Amino acid sequence: MSINSVTLIGLLAAALTTTSFIPQVIKSWRMKETKDISLWMFLILGTGIFLWMVYGLLIQDLPVILANSISFVLVVVILYFKIRYK
Amino acid sequence: MSINSVTLIGLLAAALTTTSFIPQVIKSWRMKETKDISLWMFLILGTGIFLWMVYGLLIQDLPVILANSISFVLVVVILYFKIRYK
Repeated sequence: MSINSVTLIGLLAAALTTTSFIPQVIKSWRMKETKDISLWMFLILGTGIFLWMVYGLLIQDLPVILANSISFVLVVVILYFKIRYK
Repeated sequence: MSINSVTLIGLLAAALTTTSFIPQVIKSWRMKETKDISLWMFLILGTGIFLWMVYGLLIQDLPVILANSISFVLVVVILYFKIRYK
């Protein structure tokens, strides 16, 4: 496999894990119900993604910074819905 | 910051994003209710994490392989609960 195919798989992986939060944002926003969602999952995930962002800044890796900044915003929105719609 | 502190932040980030799924597994298992969880979120996330695992194998990076293998198993368990407890 060429370096380009490998990089492509990494970029596709990053794009999928980042955009995966969008359906949950839409669902929670529409249903206004979040009781089955674990608060702890999104608190720990949000902290982890924030540290990935810091890590990206420290190693100056733009894809890591970008993917995790977008994921962080989406996870914070889900957390907001979780706290607002108990 | 030394290389070691930077690596430590990366490892902590990986540990947090991986373990974050455990509270959701426990909650869904106990409550037997998953209707507020987005099926699409976990389907896309699972596919993305699987590709991260493949990416880790291709670049032969043990932390990427390990963290994503564990996350993948946990996300599959959540998906199983999502399908079983509608």
